Amino acid sequence: MTLGFKTALIVGAGAGLSASLGRQLAAEGVKVALAARSTEDLAGLAREIGAATFACDASRQRDVEQLFSDLDKGPGSPEIVIYNPSYRTRGPVADLDPAEVEKSLMVSAFGGFLVAQQAVRRMLPKKSGCIVFTGASASVKGYAQSAPFAMGKFALRGLAQSMARELHPKGIHVAHVIIDGGIRSERRQEPADKPASMLDPDAIAASYLGVIRQSPSAWSHEVEVRPWVENF
Amino acid sequence: MTLGFKTALIVGAGAGLSASLGRQLAAEGVKVALAARSTEDLAGLAREIGAATFACDASRQRDVEQLFSDLDKGPGSPEIVIYNPSYRTRGPVADLDPAEVEKSLMVSAFGGFLVAQQAVRRMLPKKSGCIVFTGASASVKGYAQSAPFAMGKFALRGLAQSMARELHPKGIHVAHVIIDGGIRSERRQEPADKPASMLDPDAIAASYLGVIRQSPSAWSHEVEVRPWVENF
Amino acid sequence: MTLGFKTALIVGAGAGLSASLGRQLAAEGVKVALAARSTEDLAGLAREIGAATFACDASRQRDVEQLFSDLDKGPGSPEIVIYNPSYRTRGPVADLDPAEVEKSLMVSAFGGFLVAQQAVRRMLPKKSGCIVFTGASASVKGYAQSAPFAMGKFALRGLAQSMARELHPKGIHVAHVIIDGGIRSERRQEPADKPASMLDPDAIAASYLGVIRQSPSAWSHEVEVRPWVENF
Amino acid sequence: MTLGFKTALIVGAGAGLSASLGRQLAAEGVKVALAARSTEDLAGLAREIGAATFACDASRQRDVEQLFSDLDKGPGSPEIVIYNPSYRTRGPVADLDPAEVEKSLMVSAFGGFLVAQQAVRRMLPKKSGCIVFTGASASVKGYAQSAPFAMGKFALRGLAQSMARELHPKGIHVAHVIIDGGIRSERRQEPADKPASMLDPDAIAASYLGVIRQSPSAWSHEVEVRPWVENF
Repeated sequence: MTLGFKTALIVGAGAGLSASLGRQLAAEGVKVALAARSTEDLAGLAREIGAATFACDASRQRDVEQLFSDLDKGPGSPEIVIYNPSYRTRGPVADLDPAEVEKSLMVSAFGGFLVAQQAVRRMLPKKSGCIVFTGASASVKGYAQSAPFAMGKFALRGLAQSMARELHPKGIHVAHVIIDGGIRSERRQEPADKPASMLDPDAIAASYLGVIRQSPSAWSHEVEVRPWVENF
Repeated sequence: MTLGFKTALIVGAGAGLSASLGRQLAAEGVKVALAARSTEDLAGLAREIGAATFACDASRQRDVEQLFSDLDKGPGSPEIVIYNPSYRTRGPVADLDPAEVEKSLMVSAFGGFLVAQQAVRRMLPKKSGCIVFTGASASVKGYAQSAPFAMGKFALRGLAQSMARELHPKGIHVAHVIIDGGIRSERRQEPADKPASMLDPDAIAASYLGVIRQSPSAWSHEVEVRPWVENF
Repeated sequence: MTLGFKTALIVGAGAGLSASLGRQLAAEGVKVALAARSTEDLAGLAREIGAATFACDASRQRDVEQLFSDLDKGPGSPEIVIYNPSYRTRGPVADLDPAEVEKSLMVSAFGGFLVAQQAVRRMLPKKSGCIVFTGASASVKGYAQSAPFAMGKFALRGLAQSMARELHPKGIHVAHVIIDGGIRSERRQEPADKPASMLDPDAIAASYLGVIRQSPSAWSHEVEVRPWVENF
Repeated sequence: MTLGFKTALIVGAGAGLSASLGRQLAAEGVKVALAARSTEDLAGLAREIGAATFACDASRQRDVEQLFSDLDKGPGSPEIVIYNPSYRTRGPVADLDPAEVEKSLMVSAFGGFLVAQQAVRRMLPKKSGCIVFTGASASVKGYAQSAPFAMGKFALRGLAQSMARELHPKGIHVAHVIIDGGIRSERRQEPADKPASMLDPDAIAASYLGVIRQSPSAWSHEVEVRPWVENF
């Protein structure tokens, strides 16, 4: 079964998950655009999958408008949009730096809105498109000492739900994937005594593609993935 | 990507969803067994996909034991088990027939336990297997005038969650799929003024196969599917 | 603020929670009836609060019908009904005794339906009444090795939700209280190294009375209570 | 049973709910402080219940710091803090003004953090205090055309959960009350054909006081209230 889409934008493209997503989308013949605050680290992946790269701070309105205007002129407006960025800071509520809490809300949630708004404006006339937001365990459970991340991720989930209820009947699929665990990467591997305790980014990306591929007759809005050994 | 399993059992095989599941599993090379209270209606599908059929009232312990013992002797114990049966009766709480309420609990939930128990006993030594329970909107929301269905489907969800927490770390994938809407069938089509308001069983089955195919590194426990036009 | 009700029935009256409920209701001038499988242990409490006692296995239709018929003839049909009974058995899914699983469903959930049905029939003509179901952590989370309890408590929650949606607009308040932790009793005290880790039954009962006392303009359906030191 | 607290701060004091809260707290002998962006409308209530008033934009760090510093010097730091402010704007995602979305996050959620942080710093040394956040239907369900309100209220719920998990074991009660419906006021009454469809602020306030009064042995974190006729 084909994906049914030809162009994709991955925002927050620096993460390992994004590399897996980019490769799997490209393997389906999708033309991929990668956006991140800095494009420096994207060069290798971009070359590998033939992707265009864009510098964009997703929490800034002007940056996001510029990104979509560049896409319009270049590779074309994206039929698939995946929003990954988040910012977290930890600590007791009494000790948190308010500026960091605000940044959490801006990067994790407000940026999701900015990107989604631009995407939706381009998808509505075609009555087609798929927007996927990347959630975390903190999207549904506010952990102690981690209020800012919970605030940002809860807010992103509220955005995703509201968009799904508005946009599904308009032909635009809005999904929220809850990644319940740490994602394995070159820098971050599970400790020797906890094998298999992290998520393989390729396995997560396969579930994203499964959701993107769904028929409108049976769309998922929320999907959670976790390693088999994870407590939940 | 292959499914990674060679045998499957579909319980409650009379429904349209089961036909779609059976066809898609067979197309992946899986040997399918179909169980239902009456096997009469299964003959056509069984022939089409080369499946064995078994008569079994899933809410009766003896029937379920017999079913698995027959599978052991014949097609082999199932690596994939899908549990569909449910029984519903509607009405104000004051008017419900207690025997019908009990039947709802027995068919929708207790039968799920009986089947899962037999399956798990055979999967544990292999540290492998996948059990999927079919849920409904009523699994997470108790609707007015529909207490018996809510009781049965909530209970089934409790079973699925408890099993996932016990069995994921033992290599057995337990999933609960919430089908949020009516399933299209020959007998039951959407009204002319509500096109696309029902779920296509082939589309649902595709999501079941997506879950069955998942890598243990990123298993979903709960997945919901609904038509794009559905309110939720 | 008065409770606004004059008669109450507590089912599953053997537990420490029920003694606290009985005392607090009696202190508000409510005439209390206590029902339990065996009335032997109820004599002291009954004398203390001037309650009538009734032997009743709440999972048996005939017992429940007899109970309400006795109440009709004696202390009067209850305006407040509290349903506490549950039955739990633990163990890996592969090892559970199916008869015990069935008993869990019958006592924890089906009995709740039987009692509620009789109560509702008597409350509907008066467009008034309050039914409270006692839930547990397992009402919303299926723990490993505890599938039967999860099945029973999830089912009871489904019943409570469905009843609330049907009966709130008919003037009958239906509440579900999730007790997230162990309840302190004479037989069961917290270990020395975990002070304050259990719930005081008087404190729980105070929250029940708070819910019973609510104005229809701001009814709670679901309330959770847990000790301040409890992880959740 | 006494409340156990002597001082309270109500933030977002302009709303009808706050007047009810102020009166009921004052009736329990609690010294109340009222904070709102503008104190103009607070004069009547302040006189009636002997409250001090403070001008404060809760979404601005400096304002909130000033508020608590003024409280420290004057009526004393609050043992009870209630956070009500929210800002909402409606419309399709494509048409929303990003500045309004940001304001929703700042007023509904970030302000809650700023106020809570100041309160917690003063409560921690006493190992005592109660913080109540006012939620809405949108705290748990993202409605179509109402993404900004969902984002703000979801984020506030994430903050409340995270704080409860951190601070309950430190003796500080953190509660989140979901008001599922419109609140009746002089300006806003239910239409003639939908009597009783709004919440009476006095009835809501009674539930807030019930939560504030709870023993640490059985604290509620989340409570929902809705009118008896409300669909949910």
